[in-house]
Amino acid sequence: MTQVAEPVSAGLVPGADYKLLVARAVRVLNSAGVMHMSGHLAVRDAGDPARIWINSRKASRSTLTAADIVPVDLGTGKRIGTGDEPPSELPIHLAVFRRRPDVAAIVHTHPEHVIALSIVDIPLMPVHLAAGFLPERAPVWDDPNIITTLERGELVADHLGAENVLVIRGHGVVVVGGTFEEAVARTVLVAENARIQVTASNLGTPRTLKGDELARAAKQMCQPIVMKKHYHYHEETARSLGGLAGIE
Amino acid sequence: MTQVAEPVSAGLVPGADYKLLVARAVRVLNSAGVMHMSGHLAVRDAGDPARIWINSRKASRSTLTAADIVPVDLGTGKRIGTGDEPPSELPIHLAVFRRRPDVAAIVHTHPEHVIALSIVDIPLMPVHLAAGFLPERAPVWDDPNIITTLERGELVADHLGAENVLVIRGHGVVVVGGTFEEAVARTVLVAENARIQVTASNLGTPRTLKGDELARAAKQMCQPIVMKKHYHYHEETARSLGGLAGIE
Amino acid sequence: MTQVAEPVSAGLVPGADYKLLVARAVRVLNSAGVMHMSGHLAVRDAGDPARIWINSRKASRSTLTAADIVPVDLGTGKRIGTGDEPPSELPIHLAVFRRRPDVAAIVHTHPEHVIALSIVDIPLMPVHLAAGFLPERAPVWDDPNIITTLERGELVADHLGAENVLVIRGHGVVVVGGTFEEAVARTVLVAENARIQVTASNLGTPRTLKGDELARAAKQMCQPIVMKKHYHYHEETARSLGGLAGIE
Amino acid sequence: MTQVAEPVSAGLVPGADYKLLVARAVRVLNSAGVMHMSGHLAVRDAGDPARIWINSRKASRSTLTAADIVPVDLGTGKRIGTGDEPPSELPIHLAVFRRRPDVAAIVHTHPEHVIALSIVDIPLMPVHLAAGFLPERAPVWDDPNIITTLERGELVADHLGAENVLVIRGHGVVVVGGTFEEAVARTVLVAENARIQVTASNLGTPRTLKGDELARAAKQMCQPIVMKKHYHYHEETARSLGGLAGIE
Repeated sequence: MTQVAEPVSAGLVPGADYKLLVARAVRVLNSAGVMHMSGHLAVRDAGDPARIWINSRKASRSTLTAADIVPVDLGTGKRIGTGDEPPSELPIHLAVFRRRPDVAAIVHTHPEHVIALSIVDIPLMPVHLAAGFLPERAPVWDDPNIITTLERGELVADHLGAENVLVIRGHGVVVVGGTFEEAVARTVLVAENARIQVTASNLGTPRTLKGDELARAAKQMCQPIVMKKHYHYHEETARSLGGLAGIE
Repeated sequence: MTQVAEPVSAGLVPGADYKLLVARAVRVLNSAGVMHMSGHLAVRDAGDPARIWINSRKASRSTLTAADIVPVDLGTGKRIGTGDEPPSELPIHLAVFRRRPDVAAIVHTHPEHVIALSIVDIPLMPVHLAAGFLPERAPVWDDPNIITTLERGELVADHLGAENVLVIRGHGVVVVGGTFEEAVARTVLVAENARIQVTASNLGTPRTLKGDELARAAKQMCQPIVMKKHYHYHEETARSLGGLAGIE
Repeated sequence: MTQVAEPVSAGLVPGADYKLLVARAVRVLNSAGVMHMSGHLAVRDAGDPARIWINSRKASRSTLTAADIVPVDLGTGKRIGTGDEPPSELPIHLAVFRRRPDVAAIVHTHPEHVIALSIVDIPLMPVHLAAGFLPERAPVWDDPNIITTLERGELVADHLGAENVLVIRGHGVVVVGGTFEEAVARTVLVAENARIQVTASNLGTPRTLKGDELARAAKQMCQPIVMKKHYHYHEETARSLGGLAGIE
Repeated sequence: MTQVAEPVSAGLVPGADYKLLVARAVRVLNSAGVMHMSGHLAVRDAGDPARIWINSRKASRSTLTAADIVPVDLGTGKRIGTGDEPPSELPIHLAVFRRRPDVAAIVHTHPEHVIALSIVDIPLMPVHLAAGFLPERAPVWDDPNIITTLERGELVADHLGAENVLVIRGHGVVVVGGTFEEAVARTVLVAENARIQVTASNLGTPRTLKGDELARAAKQMCQPIVMKKHYHYHEETARSLGGLAGIE
């Protein structure tokens, strides 16, 4: 049987081991090819709404461990206790978590095909049934520079609005989820959807998902149980490839 | 010598270990990059025409084991005994197996380049000699949503007709075979053929295989013994990469 | 030190262990991504001009061993002794070896980007300095079907002429070398050159290597010592990735 | 914790183990997919300005060890002591190190997408925020042949000028850094930036980074501490994939 300890419940109950949970999710994203040298993932603490957990600025996304996960006070924006610093773009997470109580996890990363679309002013649009969580056109923030101030973090939250994905031109994406599994699974799908959109756009004008078709895709393909299944696949795949070695 | 226990005969004789056979074939497809988080493979039981075997809805395609394979009654469409559920798109398999006595195995998966072609209304066409099992233009079902009802399963069977491959626009493919090896080998070739077709279509109008050339390719390159050889390569490759670890 | 037993000399002296040498070279090509499920490599026996050695039809290119290499009589075209059959396209090797005494090794394989170029009638042209062994336009045989008769093998040799590479439309390539290392290294470079040519051709009209530039590239980048170095890299890489495990 | 012995300081202090440091950096570049069979990396000795260290001509970039690193006298251009030869394109390093006291490390390699852009006369331009170390248009030397003489090495230095990257048409790139980590991290980013630029250029006219946006990207994303972080990621990733096995 492939059933492993259910990471999902662990992520939502108070008192979960957030350090291990976030470290594992970062490694999973890295194994899936969407984390690279400077992505980050933050998860809101279900037992303490004033706390989030994020991978440190400096730890390698390919080999970090539970000890490399940093607790941050959502109110003050400061690291809790001593240890490594959070990433410099922490303000993305602060602003979005404060604005969006429905969000339990946020990923910021830099998928190549999303960047490519953004710099030729083609919006990210759903072309893959499994990416039905995208709106007909994903919002774009037309400012490539990094987000290291709260003021710029607020602009991210403004442009994201109530959507699940924000494209930042020439820079990358912000993806949110109601669970960490959802945020991870959506991030992988955003990269895959962008690749398909690029391939199709080279050949013609893609028939993207719209209206009823998109609504059905969102309802059938993107509910939480499917996102958990996707996350489970990515975690198992990372594990089988050695991508979780030494994580504890 | 590389000769391993012949999986082919095992697949066709009554009493074969279908759980192991299907689990291995799913892992092989996953290692070959064409299964991903939500593909599925069903095989008809040679010893009991009322039974098919399919990977469960939830088990990770990268690490599933024989215990994750579900027997289903082809007549009632219900899981036999207790255990995990089959995939929600089981009706694809029910409808096609009932309609096509020549079919022993069915794969449903979501290759990126097939999806890309489908959303710019370019039919999948044979451009690679080894993909001579394709017709000059593969049939397309112009409805991207998932197939969770028998009514929609019947529409898949209608659009597939007597062909080996059906493209579902914005969604993926259904590939059938007279043996499970054939279904697996064809699925890998469909993805490869689609990549070549995309690459060529960016540069001009591809000279696809037609008429006598296609007939010769089908006859010479696609007979069962060649498909067994292809499957053997994919299985050996998966094994050498660790993709079959812990499968029993 | 990375120096391993020099495979090169072994390949050229009478009495070399051709079974091991050919098995290893096939595995190296497979690890480099250019052999896949049905490529083949034949090497002429330096100690017996009437003999060539080739990987068997059925053995998986990812896991074959020395026992899977078949000796063939160049005069009769028959397998020497008992054992597995050579590939069905053996006539390629028979015809080219008979016609070209300068050739010590021949690879037939099916690189995706070469096939893509061939079906839009763009000749393979040198765009990468390291591929200076190509002529300004590689010859093409405009017939995609397989080569299982001596008559068709002779047509391959006719179209190849005195060149090192022949493109077969919609099918693949034949690459020859004065040593097996040269044939292997050139095959990898043909695939790489085709990828670059495709990428560039999507963006404009590539400035391919011609005239004096090409002559200098051929002289400086493609002499036997460089090809040995390339082969050594590919072999070491395959070994470090586990691609040679269990070969003896 | 993922913190390993800090390679950075080691690279800058007199008496560092340059053989191990250069071997490791070459393996890291190879694991990242940008070294291939014939790239080279040279590092200036912080304790002896008359000395540089470079990987040997013949050692496989995938498996070389500290013993394969060659010291060279920057004044005479000769190997110091006995042992393997440096690469034939050593004059690139001699000329650039002599001309640029700010440069501590130089990489010469052959990324496919850089070559593709160069042969359709599209300059490499920054499209990825992390590649802000590029000028608005990277300089190009319009001569693909190899650089085996001091005269040609001087032409490389002339065309590079005060920039960090020089594209050599139909051949590859020269990338320099103030530390070896910077040279390695920039090389990976040059390849990634070129891929994104190619993808975007197929779809439209990319909005590249310019003026204030580029200046901010350079200042925020490309300072030495970020380059160290990138290098750390690449080294940890190589290690976790087995790419550093047996290096000492």
